[in-house]
Amino acid sequence: MHIHAEVRNAEGSMGIRVAVAGASGYAGGELLRVIAGHPEFDLVAATAHSQAGSPVSAVHPQLAGLDLTLGATDAETLSGADLVFLALPHGQSAAVAARLAEGVKVVDLGADFRLESAEQWTRYYGGGHAGTWTYGLPELPGARAAIAGADRVANTGCYAATIILALAPLIAAGVADPEDVVVVASSGTSGAGRNAKVNLLASEIMGDLSPYKVGAHQHVAEIKQATGAGSLSMTPILAPMPRGILATVTARRLNGGDPREALQAAYADAPFVHVLPEGSWPHTAATAGSNSCHLQATVDIDSGRIIVVSALDNLGKGAAGQAVQNANIMFGLPETTGLSVFGVAP
Amino acid sequence: MHIHAEVRNAEGSMGIRVAVAGASGYAGGELLRVIAGHPEFDLVAATAHSQAGSPVSAVHPQLAGLDLTLGATDAETLSGADLVFLALPHGQSAAVAARLAEGVKVVDLGADFRLESAEQWTRYYGGGHAGTWTYGLPELPGARAAIAGADRVANTGCYAATIILALAPLIAAGVADPEDVVVVASSGTSGAGRNAKVNLLASEIMGDLSPYKVGAHQHVAEIKQATGAGSLSMTPILAPMPRGILATVTARRLNGGDPREALQAAYADAPFVHVLPEGSWPHTAATAGSNSCHLQATVDIDSGRIIVVSALDNLGKGAAGQAVQNANIMFGLPETTGLSVFGVAP
Amino acid sequence: MHIHAEVRNAEGSMGIRVAVAGASGYAGGELLRVIAGHPEFDLVAATAHSQAGSPVSAVHPQLAGLDLTLGATDAETLSGADLVFLALPHGQSAAVAARLAEGVKVVDLGADFRLESAEQWTRYYGGGHAGTWTYGLPELPGARAAIAGADRVANTGCYAATIILALAPLIAAGVADPEDVVVVASSGTSGAGRNAKVNLLASEIMGDLSPYKVGAHQHVAEIKQATGAGSLSMTPILAPMPRGILATVTARRLNGGDPREALQAAYADAPFVHVLPEGSWPHTAATAGSNSCHLQATVDIDSGRIIVVSALDNLGKGAAGQAVQNANIMFGLPETTGLSVFGVAP
Amino acid sequence: MHIHAEVRNAEGSMGIRVAVAGASGYAGGELLRVIAGHPEFDLVAATAHSQAGSPVSAVHPQLAGLDLTLGATDAETLSGADLVFLALPHGQSAAVAARLAEGVKVVDLGADFRLESAEQWTRYYGGGHAGTWTYGLPELPGARAAIAGADRVANTGCYAATIILALAPLIAAGVADPEDVVVVASSGTSGAGRNAKVNLLASEIMGDLSPYKVGAHQHVAEIKQATGAGSLSMTPILAPMPRGILATVTARRLNGGDPREALQAAYADAPFVHVLPEGSWPHTAATAGSNSCHLQATVDIDSGRIIVVSALDNLGKGAAGQAVQNANIMFGLPETTGLSVFGVAP
Repeated sequence: MHIHAEVRNAEGSMGIRVAVAGASGYAGGELLRVIAGHPEFDLVAATAHSQAGSPVSAVHPQLAGLDLTLGATDAETLSGADLVFLALPHGQSAAVAARLAEGVKVVDLGADFRLESAEQWTRYYGGGHAGTWTYGLPELPGARAAIAGADRVANTGCYAATIILALAPLIAAGVADPEDVVVVASSGTSGAGRNAKVNLLASEIMGDLSPYKVGAHQHVAEIKQATGAGSLSMTPILAPMPRGILATVTARRLNGGDPREALQAAYADAPFVHVLPEGSWPHTAATAGSNSCHLQATVDIDSGRIIVVSALDNLGKGAAGQAVQNANIMFGLPETTGLSVFGVAP
Repeated sequence: MHIHAEVRNAEGSMGIRVAVAGASGYAGGELLRVIAGHPEFDLVAATAHSQAGSPVSAVHPQLAGLDLTLGATDAETLSGADLVFLALPHGQSAAVAARLAEGVKVVDLGADFRLESAEQWTRYYGGGHAGTWTYGLPELPGARAAIAGADRVANTGCYAATIILALAPLIAAGVADPEDVVVVASSGTSGAGRNAKVNLLASEIMGDLSPYKVGAHQHVAEIKQATGAGSLSMTPILAPMPRGILATVTARRLNGGDPREALQAAYADAPFVHVLPEGSWPHTAATAGSNSCHLQATVDIDSGRIIVVSALDNLGKGAAGQAVQNANIMFGLPETTGLSVFGVAP
Repeated sequence: MHIHAEVRNAEGSMGIRVAVAGASGYAGGELLRVIAGHPEFDLVAATAHSQAGSPVSAVHPQLAGLDLTLGATDAETLSGADLVFLALPHGQSAAVAARLAEGVKVVDLGADFRLESAEQWTRYYGGGHAGTWTYGLPELPGARAAIAGADRVANTGCYAATIILALAPLIAAGVADPEDVVVVASSGTSGAGRNAKVNLLASEIMGDLSPYKVGAHQHVAEIKQATGAGSLSMTPILAPMPRGILATVTARRLNGGDPREALQAAYADAPFVHVLPEGSWPHTAATAGSNSCHLQATVDIDSGRIIVVSALDNLGKGAAGQAVQNANIMFGLPETTGLSVFGVAP
Repeated sequence: MHIHAEVRNAEGSMGIRVAVAGASGYAGGELLRVIAGHPEFDLVAATAHSQAGSPVSAVHPQLAGLDLTLGATDAETLSGADLVFLALPHGQSAAVAARLAEGVKVVDLGADFRLESAEQWTRYYGGGHAGTWTYGLPELPGARAAIAGADRVANTGCYAATIILALAPLIAAGVADPEDVVVVASSGTSGAGRNAKVNLLASEIMGDLSPYKVGAHQHVAEIKQATGAGSLSMTPILAPMPRGILATVTARRLNGGDPREALQAAYADAPFVHVLPEGSWPHTAATAGSNSCHLQATVDIDSGRIIVVSALDNLGKGAAGQAVQNANIMFGLPETTGLSVFGVAP
């Protein structure tokens, strides 16, 4: 498969050469869009499995004007890149990563390298554990330095990012009891991938809220690892919107601490995480197309539990935006390069 | 205001004469639709405040063909009815009810007469407590008999119905800890009423999930009263769909009890409450346009908490359907008369 | 495949025995819902291809409580029925119909038997022409008598029904020029069927309007046959809603005729076709779940062309409702039996 | 009202000072988003009527992180700007523009200055004609030069832009008959503005297609002026999506010309107008958040009419994006500066 490198919108002259493996899905499409507008990235290759040979704009009509053809996901196609994003189905990243040269920086959007514990991997995902890469959530304490020094970074999952950003500071500050966390989180349909399944058809989804994997979602392991939560009940729900995750995270309050202050302290310098003014609650549409996460917290007047609500774009801060933010840090660029703080709304 | 009593679709010859006060809102429109198809009800009057004088079909285009003009909400217009449904804004039911003759049966869809405790009323709603009517959720133990003997029934709130049906049997059976209940519930927009507000505009809602009244929703008092829950955290969310409520109810598990069995035992004879086969989870679209509530329960593999998911149509089992079910019981009719068990989907 | 005949909601004692072949799709599900509430129909069998053996409620969650198992689409399963609805993929009706006994009444929701001209069939559908059955649009002049005398009726297509109801009276009355008709019609996604295709995924559809088969839709032949139009340009568009078709039909005006009066005259006695009051325009949501069609007409102030807008539910008057209306007529029942004039809205 | 000029995301050092009058609506919000990411623009003021004094992010939650307070729409607040965008209700632009200094460049997103004919203005809008500014659709022949030399530019209307881009080249090339144009165009709800009206509520819009102003839309005058069309029938429809316009433009074909070639020739050098590959049809979601317009054309096999389909984002190429494109040209910047060619999808 020949690669057309003359990307219409790339204008960086000494840019970083970037490839996207698994570019035909929704996260892949969003990666291409963000990369095409990134001042330091030159998009040199995009690969896909069954759609290799198709123009990118045939697979992603929103990219009409991007002159690039999808290649096969093999070492040759990816070999010219300084930076490779892997947006592959779970379980396929390890094989592709193994064929990339050592100096190439890689961000994996899949789950393969997120967990430290092989046992937890097997419990939640099944099969053999591929290994552990640097965990790519820059807003966690110490994470920026670790990411800056890494060549291989495992991007946070979309649900996980939404929930960890809401919960981690509360547990770290001793405000929330890590042994009694209850999460209900709803996701837009792009989070379920570009898979031709009857239950994802528009006719079934519009007007509908439907829970799935109730009581046993695989992101629980990742959330517990990153937050220190000991017990966490999670109910994921599919919502009738293309993008966005809204997580309601509740926990028993400890020591009369103020959950909103804990969040403000944790994210004072984070350009993409906004603790909203008191009385304003996050909603997903406000984050669409951006790399921002919006947060708010209160204490329930009846039960006294802490309630934190967190919203982000599952394809933005939950996937492609997050991945580019990690890559920016890996290359020593300002964290916000090529990323939008502002959502596209309404 | 003259009343046109020749309703095109009513065909009952010795029917019960029915009036709807507050017929211009969404619950009022749904009441008219259900009543028009009810074999024992004759719709004789429908009233509204600012739209008195308009044909019903001008206010509710889905009722084109219903030959009825909206009257004023006064004693004269409502005087010919054997049964009056009140679908008025909160706080207005008492004044209208006071003007109805004693023998007239009344179902109030508002909150005014739901609470037993004047103190709770003032805490959650503010203002003076109008009183307490028979609580209209037929599936609660003993409720059918109470409703059958009552002339005044207070219909359950929409969120409350969804959550009470999920929670009451678990607390009654000793399976769930009443002191640690966490609820996150999402509602379609018709639950917010037919009010011209910017935050309810389609442009703001589509693609958006937005929480509101977090930690302080007024239905909490009603839910606690009906279930015996002692502590309940509730987060309500507005979802981008016209109808439907999906509630995720979690509670600490007691005594290793089986939550699904408790639900099955409670609703074995309830025609409108369906505990789904194991592995099937409720979703809102399946209940749209019906008076059914769908339930499923499990135990979280990580936290051991009970998770119950409950779905219904906020205008159906959450409002108009429920009200007609109560009225059926009040008049000694089969509970299901004129009501649909089946949803309109997709 | 054994058939469970004890349908929970059927209560007719001397009912007509009804079977649905192809019950797993959206039109099939709607047929089951309408039949289950029909006072003279007893649902005795529902068949499907790949999902034979599944409970109906597993395939159609909105029918929870309907105790029926899907059978195979064969002569044995269908043999006990007095009335069979065929809701099969195009091209499969002829083979199934051939195996049904002569006295059995059949309504085919597919296209196979709609066209009179074998040449037109081949042009628009390709392949061999199966034959021509009585055309099942009762509101056309003379159609009720023909349907009442028929054992085999070909149900109108969903786009075709929307457009023919708007256009036929204008051409018949000499108000519209049959040689210059332009139609743009948008359909909800259930019109595209329950097919697991990427372009029908919720993520692709929500927020999107997408035209397809532009300039060459197969319903054109059927519309011309039923209306006498000589030249018709049709652009179909997929709209982000589960149900509903809105057709804008424009034509050159002849003789200064009044298009609205022509429509009123044509449908004065049609219980399901409503010419709205002047100034009110049809919209799809008002017809959802009903068997009604809403119409309005005007003359464009700039071009002088006639504009008629027509709305109906593609699964109602465009498929299942229409089919039951035809069956009612075939069995001598009142046309409206078991069908709703009123939509489920919002 | 004091103006906070320290906009977080503006980084241009010698930037053009920009103000937005009427910033609280949807077009105003989109303008703020685009300006905040524009490398040569410094946002110095944003004004609103009733919401003056509110932080921008309280009115536009998607702009959380933009540190700016809405001012009053008066000469003082706008006086520091080199460039002013007017996004005011129709009829208010003239008064505000009159108070701006002569050298200030102004782009008006309203209709006030679009029409050349006072008579047409009065016919379609009523009231007195404010005057005529340079018409701001850069892709029209000769328009770029006119815009580059203008200090006052009237931005094209959203429907008008969609339709003119589809139609103008066909009439100019003699391919389409200007005396027989039929347009049906559907718009997302943001095109109806941020007005608290019942008919724009989410409950009414979701699941619904509703026509309005049938046969008498005010954009007809603008379209005829810009394209040379002599007779044009237009039916506008409100669609259940927040953004996007899809126009189907049909016209009688002249001289056997090829409509697609005419479009390709007209837009060969237009960076934002994409004539799609044959067989691909425009859909609105692919243009969301971008300044692109997608086009495709064919000849109807039955009627021989030309059918052109045009899609764009009503807030992008139909309003804010178009306005920034015009401003870029007015300031001698590359036309694409700060604008995205690519849509945000899904």
